Amino acid sequence: MQQYGHCENNLRNILITICYDGKNYHGWQVQDNAVTVQEVFQDAIHKVFKTKPDIKGCSRTDSGVHANMYCINVKVDSKIPCERIVAALNRFLPYDICVKDCREVPLDFHARYSCIGKEYVYKIFNGRIRDPFLYGYALHYWYSMDIDKMRKAAQFYVGEHDFTSFCTLDKRNTVNMIRNVKKFEIDKIDNIVEMRVEADGFLYNMVRIMVGTLLRVCQGKIAENDIKRIINSKNRKMAGPTAPAHGLYLNRVFYDI
Amino acid sequence: MQQYGHCENNLRNILITICYDGKNYHGWQVQDNAVTVQEVFQDAIHKVFKTKPDIKGCSRTDSGVHANMYCINVKVDSKIPCERIVAALNRFLPYDICVKDCREVPLDFHARYSCIGKEYVYKIFNGRIRDPFLYGYALHYWYSMDIDKMRKAAQFYVGEHDFTSFCTLDKRNTVNMIRNVKKFEIDKIDNIVEMRVEADGFLYNMVRIMVGTLLRVCQGKIAENDIKRIINSKNRKMAGPTAPAHGLYLNRVFYDI
Repeated sequence: MQQYGHCENNLRNILITICYDGKNYHGWQVQDNAVTVQEVFQDAIHKVFKTKPDIKGCSRTDSGVHANMYCINVKVDSKIPCERIVAALNRFLPYDICVKDCREVPLDFHARYSCIGKEYVYKIFNGRIRDPFLYGYALHYWYSMDIDKMRKAAQFYVGEHDFTSFCTLDKRNTVNMIRNVKKFEIDKIDNIVEMRVEADGFLYNMVRIMVGTLLRVCQGKIAENDIKRIINSKNRKMAGPTAPAHGLYLNRVFYDI
Repeated sequence: MQQYGHCENNLRNILITICYDGKNYHGWQVQDNAVTVQEVFQDAIHKVFKTKPDIKGCSRTDSGVHANMYCINVKVDSKIPCERIVAALNRFLPYDICVKDCREVPLDFHARYSCIGKEYVYKIFNGRIRDPFLYGYALHYWYSMDIDKMRKAAQFYVGEHDFTSFCTLDKRNTVNMIRNVKKFEIDKIDNIVEMRVEADGFLYNMVRIMVGTLLRVCQGKIAENDIKRIINSKNRKMAGPTAPAHGLYLNRVFYDI
C-alpha cells in the first residue's frame, strides 16, 4: 500500500461524546458569519493534536438547539490515551461545551453514517409567569395542556411513515422521506412537559414540527386522529408550525458498536 | 394631618415577589459602577407607576447569587390592581428577572425589617466532568462527598448561636451576631447536592462560609464535631473558606402577615 505524507497505520479513529448548551451558538455546523459549536470544537482539537484533522459530527443542529449527547469522530495520528484527550479538550473548550467521553473505534466508523438512531427531548415550561432559569432552555407555553390528548395524537407518529409533512424543505434535497419513529413519550413533572422521541433518523426540523403540531392538538385546532391524515397528505402545510429551537435537546445517539 | 404634595391616604404599600437569575448581575443593591437587580427593577417600577418611589428589598445579595424568591415593598399612590402590576412589570423586566406575585400589605410593612426568616439553598454539582448547563448555577465539586458526614457536622449549626466565625466582617458593623438556625438539610439526587438552611436571619456570607466549612469536613480537614468549637471560638479564621456565590439561591422569605 502506497503511503502519502504520513503513515496510515498509525491513524486512530476517535469517537468523542460532547454535551453543549446551544444558547450562544448558531448550531453545530461551521458557518461563514456566525459562531458554531463545530468551529469552537475544531479549535480545541487543533490545539490538542497540533494538526487539523477532519471532524465528522453526528448531525446538524439548528441555532439555539442543545445537546446532552452529541457524537463526533476524528482520525488522528496520535498516541495520547483517550482518558487524557477528555481532560485536554476540556481545558481548551469554553464552559458551555464539554467532552464527556472519548474512545477508539474502528477506522470505518463515521459519526453520521454509522448512526442507527437518535433520541431528542423537547422541553416545555407550562406556567403562567415565565421562569428566568428556563429562558433559552424550554419553550414557555402558558395555556393549559392536555397531556392525555397529546399522548393519543403522538401515537400516530410511531411507526414507519413518510414524514414529508413534518420536514422543512431546503437545499438538502433529501430523497428518502421515510423514517421509523420508535417511541414518542410525553411526561409532565411539576410545570415541565418533556416530549421524548426516538427514531432511526430525523428529517430537517422534524421534531420541532411534530411538537408544533401537538400544540395545535392541545389548542383544539387539530384533532388527535388528524395526525394520520396529516402524515398521509405528504404536505408540510397540513402540519402545525415549527416549535422554537431552544426547547430542543439532542439527548442520545445510538451506534451498533 | 398636614398633607405634603400628594395625599398620604391614597398610598398603598405593595409587596412584590420576584425571582431572578443572578448570573448577569452584581447582586441586588444599587452600585455606582455595576448593573444590579435593584437598578433594573427600579427602572421597571418607574415605567409602570410614572413616579420614582423608594424600593425596599428584603436583603442584599452578592454578585452572582440567585433568588427563587426575593421580596420587595414599594409605596405607591396608584389604583392599578395587583394582578395588572405583575403583568405590567414583567413587560418591562428583562428575561432574567420576573415578578411572580404582588399583593397589598399594611403601610407599616417593610420587606427587610418585617422579615421573620429566610431559607437559602446551596447547589453543588458533584461530578467528575463539568456540566455546561450548570455553569453559574451550581458549584462544581469533583471530589467524592460523604453526605452523612456533612449532615452530622451541619447539625451543630442548628440552634441559637453567635455566628461571628461564619461572618465576613465589613463596614456593616453588625452588633448582634446571634442567629437562630432552624434547620440545615442536605440531600443528594443524582449528581446534585442541595443544602437547605433556614434561620431567623443571616450574617454577611454566613451560608457561603457554612458551606465552605462543610466541604472542609468532606475533605477530612475539619472533624464533624469541630463545628461546635469553631462556633464557640467566634473567630472567622477557624471556619472554612467562603464557598462561591453562584451556587447560592435565596429560596424563601418569611413574613408574619
